[in-house]
Amino acid sequence: MSDNTCGSTDESASKCGGSDSGTAADGGTATDGGTKAETSTSSSSSSKCGASASTDTSASASSDSSSSKCGASSSDSSSSSSSSCGASKKSKTEEKVASTVDDFDADPGRLIAVGLGPGQPEGMTQRAQAALLEAEHIVGYTTYIDLIPDDITEEADELYDTPMCGEVSRTEEAIDRALAGHDVAIVGSGDPNVYALGGLALEILESKGATASMVDFEVVPGVPAAQSCAARVGAPLVNDSVSISLSDHLTPMEEIESRLDAVAAEEFTIAIYNPWSRKRRENFQTACEILLEHRSADTAVGVVHGAGRDDEEVEIVELGELPELGETDLIDMTTTILVGNEETYVWDDRMVTPRGYESKYDY
Amino acid sequence: MSDNTCGSTDESASKCGGSDSGTAADGGTATDGGTKAETSTSSSSSSKCGASASTDTSASASSDSSSSKCGASSSDSSSSSSSSCGASKKSKTEEKVASTVDDFDADPGRLIAVGLGPGQPEGMTQRAQAALLEAEHIVGYTTYIDLIPDDITEEADELYDTPMCGEVSRTEEAIDRALAGHDVAIVGSGDPNVYALGGLALEILESKGATASMVDFEVVPGVPAAQSCAARVGAPLVNDSVSISLSDHLTPMEEIESRLDAVAAEEFTIAIYNPWSRKRRENFQTACEILLEHRSADTAVGVVHGAGRDDEEVEIVELGELPELGETDLIDMTTTILVGNEETYVWDDRMVTPRGYESKYDY
Repeated sequence: MSDNTCGSTDESASKCGGSDSGTAADGGTATDGGTKAETSTSSSSSSKCGASASTDTSASASSDSSSSKCGASSSDSSSSSSSSCGASKKSKTEEKVASTVDDFDADPGRLIAVGLGPGQPEGMTQRAQAALLEAEHIVGYTTYIDLIPDDITEEADELYDTPMCGEVSRTEEAIDRALAGHDVAIVGSGDPNVYALGGLALEILESKGATASMVDFEVVPGVPAAQSCAARVGAPLVNDSVSISLSDHLTPMEEIESRLDAVAAEEFTIAIYNPWSRKRRENFQTACEILLEHRSADTAVGVVHGAGRDDEEVEIVELGELPELGETDLIDMTTTILVGNEETYVWDDRMVTPRGYESKYDY
Repeated sequence: MSDNTCGSTDESASKCGGSDSGTAADGGTATDGGTKAETSTSSSSSSKCGASASTDTSASASSDSSSSKCGASSSDSSSSSSSSCGASKKSKTEEKVASTVDDFDADPGRLIAVGLGPGQPEGMTQRAQAALLEAEHIVGYTTYIDLIPDDITEEADELYDTPMCGEVSRTEEAIDRALAGHDVAIVGSGDPNVYALGGLALEILESKGATASMVDFEVVPGVPAAQSCAARVGAPLVNDSVSISLSDHLTPMEEIESRLDAVAAEEFTIAIYNPWSRKRRENFQTACEILLEHRSADTAVGVVHGAGRDDEEVEIVELGELPELGETDLIDMTTTILVGNEETYVWDDRMVTPRGYESKYDY
């Protein structure tokens, strides 16, 4: 659920890989949980997990991973300042799934993966709002939890949010809370199916010996970043289109290159997620080279940085300008890039990809 | 804006091509306009266009295309029962853009292209709702107008809706109303950037000598069918993904085949829009053949028919079963097909495309 308002997509790969901060990448750091969570001692005391969100705001949980029922507080209890996910290429991270379905004796609650859409509350669907209002616990990356209007979060018994990374342990935390009997919403911007945690939730449920049916698992879709950003520059994606992430955290770069090469040779419009991070600038340059092999340097490209944020910037440029833009602040992990096809043109500060009507109709 | 709740996408190409009805495909037939439009005589009498929506419900406008200021009532005034768009391969249709910006002397109003999302009102974003509430006129395909809750449509001065096809004249109608001084929302399900009218609106504005800025043209994004349908089957699209339409109304079939071939050979998940119509069943069979050349017959495929409608059906099948399903009612123009990649698996009645976390984390 990291597909966010035209940016900060792919929370696992990108945010983590490009993390500038020296804070613990994950662990039981429910930094905002303590201040935001409603005082609901009955709930927190009876819950096998979750209580730590409102009572333990210290940097990391002291329990070790085998004894804790809570995924999020069980991983990597060291206060190491290096990120445990992201740029690291070493085999596996420290994040581990601990508890299984047998550790819970409650009747499971519900688990809903909610896509918040473009970030601002008005980009959320009514269904998403309703799902969050119904949820007893809301779990997510701090930035996304902060996007939810107060009148919704105030209705929740508990909020559990963690800073960058921690997508595995955070998702496990959400699952554990549902298995412990709570109705839980796990949130992210964009759509849960676009570089997001919808699939991870199912994978972890399975690894715990639980089932999706057991927690009435449901996905509430949201507006993906590609469409949020496309709207900002006009109509760049109107025809057959591709979403492709340049993050090689979970996909080898050779595969990304091969995919990009295949679609650039066809007339797809292309939405590029996660174009750049401090740790992997070269992927962006490689992507530009591949695009320029197939498309002319004057191909229209929409660049949307930090959409819906204070530092939002929208520019329409030519493909040939992209490589040098990679050296500027315009392109980072909060940027989504929309590459037109050879028919895309710029008119009145908008990108227009004709749908083909002009071949059929006079106008 | 035809990208609809997992189906009836691509209104221009599909609905029209596959039309079973013998009604005039387009023209001034504001069939529902007369009954739904608020009685607002001041508005309708001063408007250069639009008045016909509430007063003229006859099958077609009597004016000829050159004298009418209204696109929708100017096209094809014959009452021919054959469709003027869709399956017809002849050069151009009768739809023509008539008026130019010089025909209007009012201060232009606003024009907003609003994506309604998955069909049901709860799939709409708050921004979409607000845009519709602000609009004086709401223009769209009858089916989409019907999706809007009454408490919103009742606030509008006028509704202008036409049945299948007519996307060019309906879009022109919306533009003419904006140029005549009204705040206009043109609506469709899904997202205005996905096989939809966002681009057409810009193209027609340009052809009229107007500009997008003149009408403060804005796109309000919605949840595309690919994501709405993906949510229904779990997490099938979590990684790099493609949207591709099998409608050859506006794109030659050779190009569609080439695109499908290129992406099927890579590990993209694929959302297929407009898989089938009465007039072009063979595109679907061809698509199945191409997919089967690259992916094994047991590849997981989600089939979502008529999502959000009374006849909704959701099935998860294997790729090898798709060709014969093409002969059943499950696959028609209201169906969206989600083709997994080789890692996609089915678990507990859900499709799961792993994001790759399992290679990095233990769970």
